[in-house]
Amino acid sequence: MIKEIREHRSIRRYRPDAVPQEVMEEILRAATRASTVGNMQLYSIVVTTARGLLDELASLHLNQPAAATAPAILTFCADIHRFSRWCELRGAEPGYDNFCWFMNGATDALLASQNAALEAEAHGLGICYLGTTLYNAGEIAGVLGLPHGVLPVMALSMGYPETVPPLTDRLPLEAVVHYDTYEDYTPERLDALWHERETSEETQCLLAENGLPNLARIFTERRYAKGDNVAFSRKYFDELVRQGFFNQ
Amino acid sequence: MIKEIREHRSIRRYRPDAVPQEVMEEILRAATRASTVGNMQLYSIVVTTARGLLDELASLHLNQPAAATAPAILTFCADIHRFSRWCELRGAEPGYDNFCWFMNGATDALLASQNAALEAEAHGLGICYLGTTLYNAGEIAGVLGLPHGVLPVMALSMGYPETVPPLTDRLPLEAVVHYDTYEDYTPERLDALWHERETSEETQCLLAENGLPNLARIFTERRYAKGDNVAFSRKYFDELVRQGFFNQ
Repeated sequence: MIKEIREHRSIRRYRPDAVPQEVMEEILRAATRASTVGNMQLYSIVVTTARGLLDELASLHLNQPAAATAPAILTFCADIHRFSRWCELRGAEPGYDNFCWFMNGATDALLASQNAALEAEAHGLGICYLGTTLYNAGEIAGVLGLPHGVLPVMALSMGYPETVPPLTDRLPLEAVVHYDTYEDYTPERLDALWHERETSEETQCLLAENGLPNLARIFTERRYAKGDNVAFSRKYFDELVRQGFFNQ
Repeated sequence: MIKEIREHRSIRRYRPDAVPQEVMEEILRAATRASTVGNMQLYSIVVTTARGLLDELASLHLNQPAAATAPAILTFCADIHRFSRWCELRGAEPGYDNFCWFMNGATDALLASQNAALEAEAHGLGICYLGTTLYNAGEIAGVLGLPHGVLPVMALSMGYPETVPPLTDRLPLEAVVHYDTYEDYTPERLDALWHERETSEETQCLLAENGLPNLARIFTERRYAKGDNVAFSRKYFDELVRQGFFNQ
């Protein structure tokens, strides 16, 4: 397996050393080699390294150490703005301010981000995907000065790891893979797929700490509760509409 | 740069040879090593190799040779179904049937797909991202037997390349990268960024073939016209709602 894929783990605490500019450029060049819909490159990457801006971003990423200690944050955005301006400049009518092209831009951005993540790791750097990007996308857009037609879909924090944690476990491969058609999950199969994780020492510690009877309730009550999920969904979708990705 | 990233190109015509099962499993294992929101693995990968199903999928991918000649198509889906069933089985109330968790599932699926693409290339295989997945996601869901809570976001065709085309050009790096904040594009800057592509021999041939005065109009009138974009946007978003990703 490609070494960087096999050894990937999220790094949640970084040393303060900056990412050298020539390394950053190689990472960004790697990002642009990913497939992109129609070779239209419907994304932008905003590379933030200035301390004041990093602090503002870290706060919008809920001050998690993976953001707060990072010397660089790369914000990957769906961007129909650049392509549409180019079309207008050429007397062509752009028609990309709709949901399919949000999806295309988000896809471009995410494929580019994964190339960037792996290339960063090839240079001894660590990364962490910041899912909090969805929670405060509008505020992040404000900090980064994004125009109409540009929406953050993901951010990567990046830097030299302070510590390298062990690999994270995954469900057995057969949990996520289906051959030819989707094989639905019986209760017995779900029990078997989650067995190792549910009986691990780590999970037992979590249950004791949280005073909850099982791992699923840690997810639904502590980590990602329905009320928050709905509130953030409305907020992100409103921002998507406001940024011009839903004229349909 | 990581070799597979540097040398990636889309392969649009494959030899008929099957992908050996042990190679496929290594590719799928690579996919699962990508970051995933909260380690929840909110995606499924449906691996299609049966001829009849491949033909049905190829037709839904508009019979492009990249789909029609492929011995394998991997459909990457946002999947809140498996995780939600597990929660219910444990007496936990899942709250993932909303837009944020569509985004999280789509992100998981797309990061996994990029790992799969690179790992496939490391084994001498070629891949092509099938953006047509968005056009007929509901019909694809029907062919693959996807339950409520599972929605295709992307597919990869995969096989041994019949021919290997040259690398595709990209806009200059500064077209997609911004440092610290977004630097908006002046007409002069857009001219400069697109200059090489607009003046290339390939573009001149395209203009002559299409009887159009510039490359932008090939995109807006021939490749991705507004009316189609709007129609596919409505269709995909309707499917997203129907599959239970917009209860908010």
